[in-house]
This record gives sequence, C-alpha cells and structure tokens, in this order.
Amino acid sequence: MTEFSITILGSGAATPTLGRHCSAQVVNIGCFKMLVDCGEGTQNQIRAFHQKMQAFSTIFISHLHGDHWFGLPGLLSSMHLCGRTEPVTVFAPKGIKELLERIFEVSGSHLGYELTVNEIAPDGPEVIFENGKCKVTAFPLLHSVPTYGFLFEEQPPLLNLRKDVRAHYGLSDTDCRRVKLGYDVEGADGTVIPNALLTKPRKLPRSYAYCCDTAYSEQLLDTITGATMLCIESTFDKSLESLASLRQHCTAAQAAQLARQAGVKQLLLTHFSARYKDLDLLLDEARAIFPDTFPANDGETYTLPPNDQEAR
Amino acid sequence: MTEFSITILGSGAATPTLGRHCSAQVVNIGCFKMLVDCGEGTQNQIRAFHQKMQAFSTIFISHLHGDHWFGLPGLLSSMHLCGRTEPVTVFAPKGIKELLERIFEVSGSHLGYELTVNEIAPDGPEVIFENGKCKVTAFPLLHSVPTYGFLFEEQPPLLNLRKDVRAHYGLSDTDCRRVKLGYDVEGADGTVIPNALLTKPRKLPRSYAYCCDTAYSEQLLDTITGATMLCIESTFDKSLESLASLRQHCTAAQAAQLARQAGVKQLLLTHFSARYKDLDLLLDEARAIFPDTFPANDGETYTLPPNDQEAR
Repeated sequence: MTEFSITILGSGAATPTLGRHCSAQVVNIGCFKMLVDCGEGTQNQIRAFHQKMQAFSTIFISHLHGDHWFGLPGLLSSMHLCGRTEPVTVFAPKGIKELLERIFEVSGSHLGYELTVNEIAPDGPEVIFENGKCKVTAFPLLHSVPTYGFLFEEQPPLLNLRKDVRAHYGLSDTDCRRVKLGYDVEGADGTVIPNALLTKPRKLPRSYAYCCDTAYSEQLLDTITGATMLCIESTFDKSLESLASLRQHCTAAQAAQLARQAGVKQLLLTHFSARYKDLDLLLDEARAIFPDTFPANDGETYTLPPNDQEAR
Repeated sequence: MTEFSITILGSGAATPTLGRHCSAQVVNIGCFKMLVDCGEGTQNQIRAFHQKMQAFSTIFISHLHGDHWFGLPGLLSSMHLCGRTEPVTVFAPKGIKELLERIFEVSGSHLGYELTVNEIAPDGPEVIFENGKCKVTAFPLLHSVPTYGFLFEEQPPLLNLRKDVRAHYGLSDTDCRRVKLGYDVEGADGTVIPNALLTKPRKLPRSYAYCCDTAYSEQLLDTITGATMLCIESTFDKSLESLASLRQHCTAAQAAQLARQAGVKQLLLTHFSARYKDLDLLLDEARAIFPDTFPANDGETYTLPPNDQEAR
C-alpha cells in the first residue's frame, strides 16, 4: 500500500509554546511530500524532525493569520541559500504574492529558483493541484479572514489483473496496461471484455481533510464526508464554546461532532490553545463523541489506515 | 555594579541550525532589557531561555536581511496576543515600517499596544535612544544592504561623596544631589567648591558594540574604540577570506584584528556559518590575534567586565 502519512511540525495555536510550534504539517503521499501551513520556525522544525527542506516543491497555506505563514519567507530564503534550483509552488489566499515579493525585495533576496504563487479564493470545493500521486481540493472554511481547507486524495493505484486472464483472453502488453488503468478491451474476436471480468477490486483511495482554522460549520460536510482522516482544529474545550464562536474556532466537542457526521475513520485534533498544558480535557471531550480521536503532537507521524471498501 | 550583560538568543548566520538560531540578542543594562535583531524563531528562543517577552519595549534591527528580522512580526503579534498594553519602539532601517503595516494588515492583526517604528539611516555615529540606564548610538557598517551597528553605553552611576564633606562644607540635601550628578556647588560663603573636591572617582561606564553583519572596515574604529566588549560577526574562517569579502562578511581573524585595533577588553564572536560544526577553527584563529575572545552560544549570558579606568 502506498504510504499516506501526516507528520506534524507544529500543533499549537496563535502563540507557540516550547512543545507546540505554530501550524505546519507534512502530507506524504507515496513519497511526494507537501507542506501544509508554515508557521514561524517551520524550517527549524523540518530540521528537528529529520525532514528534508528541499523535498517540498508544493506548499499550501490555509490563511494569512501569522501563525500559519510567518515561517514561509524564512523557509523560501533558506531553500535558496542551500542551493535550490527546483521550482516551488505556493497555494495561498490573496495578498500573499505581493507581500512575499515586497519582503524579498526589502530583504535584498533574489531566489535562485522559480517561485510560483497561486492565489486561491474558491467559493466551493475546487481542485487546485493534481499529479500522479494525489489530487488536492481547496474549500472554504468559516473564519475571520478568508481561510481554506484542503482535501488530499491519493490517486487510485493500478488495478491488478485476475489470475490467468492474460492467457485466457490473449491480451497483449498494451491491452494489459489499459486494463490496469481501468479500461475495457477487445478480445481477439472483437467482443468487448469488461474491465470487471479482468481485474480484482481494489481498496478505495484514501483521503485526508485538513480544516484549520474554522468555526463549527456543517457546510464542511459537503467536502469532508467519507474522508479517511479528518484533521480539524480544536483550539478550545467546550466550556469555552462562546469564546470559540467569537474567535471562529472549534471546540474539541465540535470537532468530534463533525468527524461523526462526516463518517470519517479517524480524527486528528490540532491547533491547541497555549492554555492547555496537557490535552486530556480536549481528548476526553472529543472521544466521548468520536472514539478514534488522536492529538496532533509536534514531531509525530500519523499513517492513514486503509479503506475497508473496495471498488474498481 | 549595575548589571550589564548580553544573552544570546541566536548566533547562527543566514541559515539557522538546530543549535544556532538566526541572530538575536538581549542587552540587559540595569534590568532594562533591549532586543537586538530578531531572526525567525526569536519568540521561541525567548521562551526557551527564560526571558520575558513583555520585557522588551525597545528593539533594534541592524538590517533587513531576513535572518535578522523575520521573527519580528511573530514576536510583535504574540506580545499583542498575550495582552500587552505597554508601547514598543522598533529602530530599524528604512522599509520596515510600511512592510510591518502591510504584514499586519494582510494577517488581520490589530495590535492592542502602540507600536512606533523609527526608521534609521545614520551616515555616521548618531545617538538614537537614551534613558536613565543607557545610551544607544547607531553607526553604519559595511554590508550589501544598509546595515547599522549599535553601541550600548551604560549611563554613569551617581558619584559618591567623599567622607565628611557634607558636614565640612555645610551642604544641603539639594547640594548633595547636585554634587552626586557631577555639578560644583557654592559653599556658605559663596565660593565655588569644585566637584572633584567633594567626590570620589568612579569607574568609567562600560559599553558594548554590536557589529553584525559587516565586512572588515577600519572605519568602525571611530565608534568601537575603547568599547568594553565588542560583538562582531565572524561568519567565516580566514581560508574563506575572499568569500567573506564577496559577501561582505568578516573572518574570525578580521574580527580579532578589529578588536585589537579598537583596544576593547573582550571580543564576542557571532553569526557563524552553518558549515562550522564546532568553532575551534574560528576561535583559534581569533585568539591568536586577540586572546580574550569568546564564542556567542545560544542561551548563554556574557557579563561585561568592569572598566579599570576611573574618572568623574
């Protein structure tokens, strides 16, 4: 099975603590590594947790509150200073492009690689990136500034041929390649052989939904329903629900409620307020509603479980 | 003796390492703490080394290369988020004011305290800050963008009265206060009593010169001569002198040469290239020229020695 894992570089909220840096994660799908959010100090967290800075050619920024992007200028600079020539693409809300240009201008930096900044402003789910490994859909969250969630879906693997079909139907190499891609083929007598006769069902592709920062909103269900793992912020516990609502954040209970409604397999909580010295309160609250809940901890890696469902 | 010490928050060069963050220092003169440079991650270094973020009302930025200020937006934001109401003043080269405003605008941040940004561009030594504890002089360095050094001088303490002069000359409380400040006073018969007759000599005030980043330049001697402690960058060792010259940095040997020429008491080296896993090469090179050389290490505090010379 293709690797599909999340490594947490920062799981803190607006003010970092020594144990929880500002938001940043690595999404690794089949060794294609994407950086999601880039709070201050992300480049050091990359080093501390043995990631490779130059591995990131694609960076997604959820919104422009400082704790989600103040590490970006430093990371992009260090990539240059360490000799990068491979291009980098950043997907981020409007405003970042001109600001990065101005920051590099004032800092006297001239990047030695091509930096493309794609400003995003989807008003509904919109595929913003796709390659052979994955597809990334951005969708709006409910926060005090334009903020977007990201749904990372692995591309389905090639189908496996059933035993003996190659010889039985006299398939050529080209036929076999097409069958593995999901196509029907013609037999020697010109009749169409349906793909389902030739291949075994495969596990449904997994998906990871990242929703940070957001208030509780059932509109998210349109996109996150059925995700394998949902990562959602739980800045506060439920005793602070009105504060959460005021600041457009979620409580742990609200995060768990969304996970249950969305029918995801696992829930990863993140973006914890610095007031919580340990997370027992938040975890207990969430697990009472959605048992398969885990806390994002800086430096830890979470692997997505396989999907039980099979399809072609 | 008044405390006069330097705590290193970051001693690395452009690319930070796990052990050496980007440039930042605390200059503490009689419990008045100033932040000098603010590389990415400075707010976390402040926490890690048990400094108090809200203690800093005065911040000096030497130049706008990212490794000297990319931590500033995050620090200023966190001060706000942690409830600051006391004003903050930043002294920094031109360009930073508009950029900070734009960054906070894009980030949706509204600081709850007054932030004053004083843009500096001295073409020679210029006093930019003074209070009861210290005086700060900015002066130009030789680097690829406008860059300034800072000379921190403690204010001279009150003079001590000689034994019995109060009774002998019939001095009032007001007279005594004036004498301690260095003034002459009139005796009961109207004759002037020179201050030197009434007071003991005191140690000359100490001073700390911070020069980062800079190429070797004897013009610095105008300002740094006689400083108690000189902190100067030594990005490279002398085998890389031409690279140092090209990038307008110093070698350890050049730093030591400046310290010797300036007749300072102690030399603190900083801004070490990430290529040096240990500093023996740089320290040996500098100590051969100037024995009282120390390396700046993240988290360490260096106290300025007393001045031997006395004066009024």
